[in-house]
Amino acid sequence: MTEQPIDLALFDAVAYREWTEGTSVVLIPVGAFEQHGPHMPLGTDAILSTAMARGTAERINRVAPGAAAVAQPFTHGYKSQQKSGGGDHLPGTISLDASTLIAQTRDIARGFLQQGVSHVVFVNGHYENYQFLYEGIDLALRDLGISEEGGQSAMLLSYWDFVTEDTLRAVYPDGFPGWDIEHGGVLETSLMLHLRPEHVRMERAVSHPPAELPRFDRLPVIASRTPETGCLSAPDGSSAEKGELLFAQAAGLMAEDIAAELRLASA
Amino acid sequence: MTEQPIDLALFDAVAYREWTEGTSVVLIPVGAFEQHGPHMPLGTDAILSTAMARGTAERINRVAPGAAAVAQPFTHGYKSQQKSGGGDHLPGTISLDASTLIAQTRDIARGFLQQGVSHVVFVNGHYENYQFLYEGIDLALRDLGISEEGGQSAMLLSYWDFVTEDTLRAVYPDGFPGWDIEHGGVLETSLMLHLRPEHVRMERAVSHPPAELPRFDRLPVIASRTPETGCLSAPDGSSAEKGELLFAQAAGLMAEDIAAELRLASA
Amino acid sequence: MTEQPIDLALFDAVAYREWTEGTSVVLIPVGAFEQHGPHMPLGTDAILSTAMARGTAERINRVAPGAAAVAQPFTHGYKSQQKSGGGDHLPGTISLDASTLIAQTRDIARGFLQQGVSHVVFVNGHYENYQFLYEGIDLALRDLGISEEGGQSAMLLSYWDFVTEDTLRAVYPDGFPGWDIEHGGVLETSLMLHLRPEHVRMERAVSHPPAELPRFDRLPVIASRTPETGCLSAPDGSSAEKGELLFAQAAGLMAEDIAAELRLASA
Amino acid sequence: MTEQPIDLALFDAVAYREWTEGTSVVLIPVGAFEQHGPHMPLGTDAILSTAMARGTAERINRVAPGAAAVAQPFTHGYKSQQKSGGGDHLPGTISLDASTLIAQTRDIARGFLQQGVSHVVFVNGHYENYQFLYEGIDLALRDLGISEEGGQSAMLLSYWDFVTEDTLRAVYPDGFPGWDIEHGGVLETSLMLHLRPEHVRMERAVSHPPAELPRFDRLPVIASRTPETGCLSAPDGSSAEKGELLFAQAAGLMAEDIAAELRLASA
Amino acid sequence: MTEQPIDLALFDAVAYREWTEGTSVVLIPVGAFEQHGPHMPLGTDAILSTAMARGTAERINRVAPGAAAVAQPFTHGYKSQQKSGGGDHLPGTISLDASTLIAQTRDIARGFLQQGVSHVVFVNGHYENYQFLYEGIDLALRDLGISEEGGQSAMLLSYWDFVTEDTLRAVYPDGFPGWDIEHGGVLETSLMLHLRPEHVRMERAVSHPPAELPRFDRLPVIASRTPETGCLSAPDGSSAEKGELLFAQAAGLMAEDIAAELRLASA
Amino acid sequence: MTEQPIDLALFDAVAYREWTEGTSVVLIPVGAFEQHGPHMPLGTDAILSTAMARGTAERINRVAPGAAAVAQPFTHGYKSQQKSGGGDHLPGTISLDASTLIAQTRDIARGFLQQGVSHVVFVNGHYENYQFLYEGIDLALRDLGISEEGGQSAMLLSYWDFVTEDTLRAVYPDGFPGWDIEHGGVLETSLMLHLRPEHVRMERAVSHPPAELPRFDRLPVIASRTPETGCLSAPDGSSAEKGELLFAQAAGLMAEDIAAELRLASA
Repeated sequence: MTEQPIDLALFDAVAYREWTEGTSVVLIPVGAFEQHGPHMPLGTDAILSTAMARGTAERINRVAPGAAAVAQPFTHGYKSQQKSGGGDHLPGTISLDASTLIAQTRDIARGFLQQGVSHVVFVNGHYENYQFLYEGIDLALRDLGISEEGGQSAMLLSYWDFVTEDTLRAVYPDGFPGWDIEHGGVLETSLMLHLRPEHVRMERAVSHPPAELPRFDRLPVIASRTPETGCLSAPDGSSAEKGELLFAQAAGLMAEDIAAELRLASA
Repeated sequence: MTEQPIDLALFDAVAYREWTEGTSVVLIPVGAFEQHGPHMPLGTDAILSTAMARGTAERINRVAPGAAAVAQPFTHGYKSQQKSGGGDHLPGTISLDASTLIAQTRDIARGFLQQGVSHVVFVNGHYENYQFLYEGIDLALRDLGISEEGGQSAMLLSYWDFVTEDTLRAVYPDGFPGWDIEHGGVLETSLMLHLRPEHVRMERAVSHPPAELPRFDRLPVIASRTPETGCLSAPDGSSAEKGELLFAQAAGLMAEDIAAELRLASA
Repeated sequence: MTEQPIDLALFDAVAYREWTEGTSVVLIPVGAFEQHGPHMPLGTDAILSTAMARGTAERINRVAPGAAAVAQPFTHGYKSQQKSGGGDHLPGTISLDASTLIAQTRDIARGFLQQGVSHVVFVNGHYENYQFLYEGIDLALRDLGISEEGGQSAMLLSYWDFVTEDTLRAVYPDGFPGWDIEHGGVLETSLMLHLRPEHVRMERAVSHPPAELPRFDRLPVIASRTPETGCLSAPDGSSAEKGELLFAQAAGLMAEDIAAELRLASA
Repeated sequence: MTEQPIDLALFDAVAYREWTEGTSVVLIPVGAFEQHGPHMPLGTDAILSTAMARGTAERINRVAPGAAAVAQPFTHGYKSQQKSGGGDHLPGTISLDASTLIAQTRDIARGFLQQGVSHVVFVNGHYENYQFLYEGIDLALRDLGISEEGGQSAMLLSYWDFVTEDTLRAVYPDGFPGWDIEHGGVLETSLMLHLRPEHVRMERAVSHPPAELPRFDRLPVIASRTPETGCLSAPDGSSAEKGELLFAQAAGLMAEDIAAELRLASA
Repeated sequence: MTEQPIDLALFDAVAYREWTEGTSVVLIPVGAFEQHGPHMPLGTDAILSTAMARGTAERINRVAPGAAAVAQPFTHGYKSQQKSGGGDHLPGTISLDASTLIAQTRDIARGFLQQGVSHVVFVNGHYENYQFLYEGIDLALRDLGISEEGGQSAMLLSYWDFVTEDTLRAVYPDGFPGWDIEHGGVLETSLMLHLRPEHVRMERAVSHPPAELPRFDRLPVIASRTPETGCLSAPDGSSAEKGELLFAQAAGLMAEDIAAELRLASA
Repeated sequence: MTEQPIDLALFDAVAYREWTEGTSVVLIPVGAFEQHGPHMPLGTDAILSTAMARGTAERINRVAPGAAAVAQPFTHGYKSQQKSGGGDHLPGTISLDASTLIAQTRDIARGFLQQGVSHVVFVNGHYENYQFLYEGIDLALRDLGISEEGGQSAMLLSYWDFVTEDTLRAVYPDGFPGWDIEHGGVLETSLMLHLRPEHVRMERAVSHPPAELPRFDRLPVIASRTPETGCLSAPDGSSAEKGELLFAQAAGLMAEDIAAELRLASA
């Protein structure tokens, strides 16, 4: 069964049934449809979370062959907020209401768990999604009456939380500016340069100081607070090498944590 | 601007803004995550509707350069019904509640139209979705107060409604069994053999008579009414050639109809 | 108990309790409040589905005395669509949002099943309702945890699906134009002439060619695509005799199918 | 136009259009599907509110010919509460969740007002419905942005609020026990004896003291608090004469109030 | 444990756990944010229902030490209606949609009952809330599958229903005008003069005849029907003494009824 | 008008109307009902956010007399998450579903803005609430069509984001452990010792190392990961002096930021 694809959507029904007979972990990448400045595509978040989920699943499958598969990504996310994504008013950003994202998460988590998938892991790639994914998961578990004892579970993580201090120092030699303004900046750009260089146009990138945003949110947003590029920090110094480092380190650590948490390693 | 990608998720924010300054048409493929028998992948419906949308957009762009782009597909659909998809109880089928699919459609249609996209076209590839997509569109237009006079519009279609009688005769020389039992049958299999042969395993396909289903729906379903393969008719006689014919004819007619309806042809 | 009324709303509480102690089947007619041209009443769909449900219940009760009763109809339905009902913009058409129709179906199906009614059968008389009734039923069964083994069930049907080819040939000697444009046409008009002739004003009927509607839906609708009468095909050639034939054949077949499916015939 | 039917569902589309060109008032009866003791039908509340609405509309049309019409009743209502209807646990009572009743009211009120009907009047016949009808109306007006100045309006009333002290004294010579326990009692029974005597079986009626219910609601209900008949007071002393008096007085006063409030009287 | 505070929000987690190990009753006051004329604060309803709940809990705890505690009040309620609160259009009235109030009630009732609190008692202080609280409770019990046998329960009451005829005669020597127009009148004002005199400004109070409101509700409201003060009856004759009488009598009777109903008295 | 109370619920209707005639800012504290260890009350979050809002409003009113008032707090919040609050399974934690908190926020924000209040400021005191408050605000602004130009706005902040680095160094001489595990720790305990010392029982506090929680969320939670106290870090070293410092600094900075952002300072 190790020749099965990593993409769950490419399984056929027979392979799917066999897969759910053992310990099965589905990784669901979550992205957004969101402007990422002049140099990166609107679909960046789903591209990155999908790549992270694939890299993680492959690493899990090295210790637990065939256990992990990757579902198709959520391609639209919660509304871009000015302090983390520039704002939902920017052209190229098409978002979901909270209730929609919660419902989508709930239905899909419930569906997989009800069909006997052992564990559902949401791999988030868009800052604003997190709490709504959490609620969707919580409601799915409530729907099914899943408790700590039952064995099935859901996990939720954002891939950047698996970037270590060491990696940050390597990627940002002048000091890490903070995750909140890492929208369209060095981390995302480097990852894209590593994973999908054909879709990055560094010649369009603009250098500018990091956005200075207030401690509060204000709505309607004062549009002028977002830099004209739509990026909260400039991608200056991004490189495929940094992307490779970030990717391998984060995917490795995610795989390690998931395998340990879910006791996936075969004896 | 003709060098822009056909996939909207690969546009950057600048390209997106330029695109919405002219007449812009976004085609949104809609699929499902649904068993398609032992010989085809779970993601078949989204694969096919995405290919159809791409083929259609390319043909539209021949007469209206740069007007059409393809959004990322909806990868989960409404519940598989026994009479059209074998049933929602089958392993490998993970579906959305109606309210979730409606909300997703509403948010995304509203988002595009609010951001100045001229027309939104949903290209459906999963029978059960249609009415819920319709409702989502209707609510989005109500939200925005869009009327016949305003110029903006939404279209909704299922690609098989664009297969002509002539093509049906060529594809089904012994007579067309009806769309309702075309789940995992000759049409879908032939299209997959043409478009994604690497994901079809004809050696797993099973020949069996078409399902005989009652005139009514019953819930809970009597599981034994669905053929064991999960297909409502066997893929006997499927071929890449038939798939090519189906694809070219349907995509061609969709492009023609959309271009005429939306007056897209450049003078 | 055979003297009990066929209308469930006319049962008293004692009769209701006795009825649910045996095998009990409630037929729920579903209609719409929708323009049906200049010659038929707005309530046509509920009138017809109610008559069909009554005729069916009477025939069921011949083989299973007292088993079937008819609930009061849903008098408002889902939005009239241009391709099947002329469109929701037409004066005299007052419709429900999908979520409302789903909720109504869910509550009422759940209510009957929870109170021990054996089977709930929705008899649909308005094309656009079908999928929303399906979802309401599915959610009611989920609420109650009803499974294939439990014995209770819900059925859903549209009465025209029980009109046979033979009958169609008799009713449409020049060829059947298709169910999709049978709005205000020969079938509905003939049935009304048979069942409620006092509410048909044939002198107001207008002859016109069948509507030619595109393969897609477009919203907002182009109003001029609907014939001025609001009918998608003219009622030319309608007669009470055809209505009688249609009614007896369809109600007979529905009763047969339901009795067989639910094993209602007393030994 | 005075020959038009009083029932709106029997209007054809042409008559409907003409009606909305003048001042048009639709009365919507609201009932319930609720046990009413051993002597009255489950559909009593819709029967009575429909009769009241018809009687009122006829009286309105005497002063404003053709202005008033009666829509089809809501046949299911909000959950029967122990203190006003015996409780929702009783066999024969099938109710709606609040959200469903609110949505139904909102959609239908919005539909009529949006199509140019001048005024919508809900005629309530089931105690527990009132607040949910109110909310549905309020949301419909919010949806449409209707304000005091616009001329259109909605009215909401329960028919028993139009029974005067004088009538009460005539109907209850020993003193009126209060509306709260008038479920299945003298008022409803007398009205049914007047309006639909063929559906009342007085020989089944049971005499018992009025229910003594606490000042609070408790859930789950203590079932033994509801009298075994399901009636909160016995129908002792009911008569068709009392029903005739109640009907004529209440319908007369409703017509008067509505005509005055909406300035319907023709000059 | 008798030294524990009466306010549940002041319990620490250890005290809370100990409390739920015995018979525990939480009283939840429900108010509104609503204009109460020129002489009383906007928060009057929550102030009064909280005081009533505290007084009741203290009296319960005399017979069942430590059993009762008071949760924090709902400070916003359902929309003020013209006939009971002057109307929702008045400055200073900020209300909830029905669905919001229902959801809040459902979540909080479910939360307490799920955590092992024995009984939840809603103490209502705003006329318009009642039915929505009822629905929230009903849904919470449905969520948890609580039945009559289980022992846990919820109670719902409005404090004014515990004012006896004797007290009414003492408070309104000239006759009680009816609860419906007791908005900002003698009852509420007297209670405030007793409980929170520092927040009543009798010098601002205006004398005027009671509002004369129709038998029906009309929306949008005719604003001029509400007296200019926003009170439906004048507070003439209010006094702290009357407030003290009202408070002691009602709180006493509530405590008695709750203790009896829930069998709280220690042996 | 400067003698008006700071608590909006204590305004009378006349004072409210006068207040909304000028620039008016309502601060809405948001808390939770959540265990805070053995030494602090369940209502801690609402107590602290209310105190912070009051302190902020008083400081705003020094530069813009009478502009700011404080609404009653939200006393229940979103579900406690293990990584920020110990988890929603802990006794004493009663939370709202996301949809409920969003609806409450939406209704109240819409209500104030619709009634002419200039600005609504949510002062959050419970980590998990933030995103749901954001969504509620966003929907309220959408409901009302409020845009950047209109002048009205909503602000959203968490009070701890206004604690400066300097203050952190003073409060945590051994280094700040991070906001995420500041549940029941030094910050909250010190603030309570300053503001409500009578409700803190330091003798019950337990010293233990900070919780070590994974980078991901897992549901259902592994209960043993939360320290037995329910606190994520021990309150060792808390003091009223630190609380005073924290309070004055944060409230001061919030007032400054709000006044600057909303241009409140009188000329």
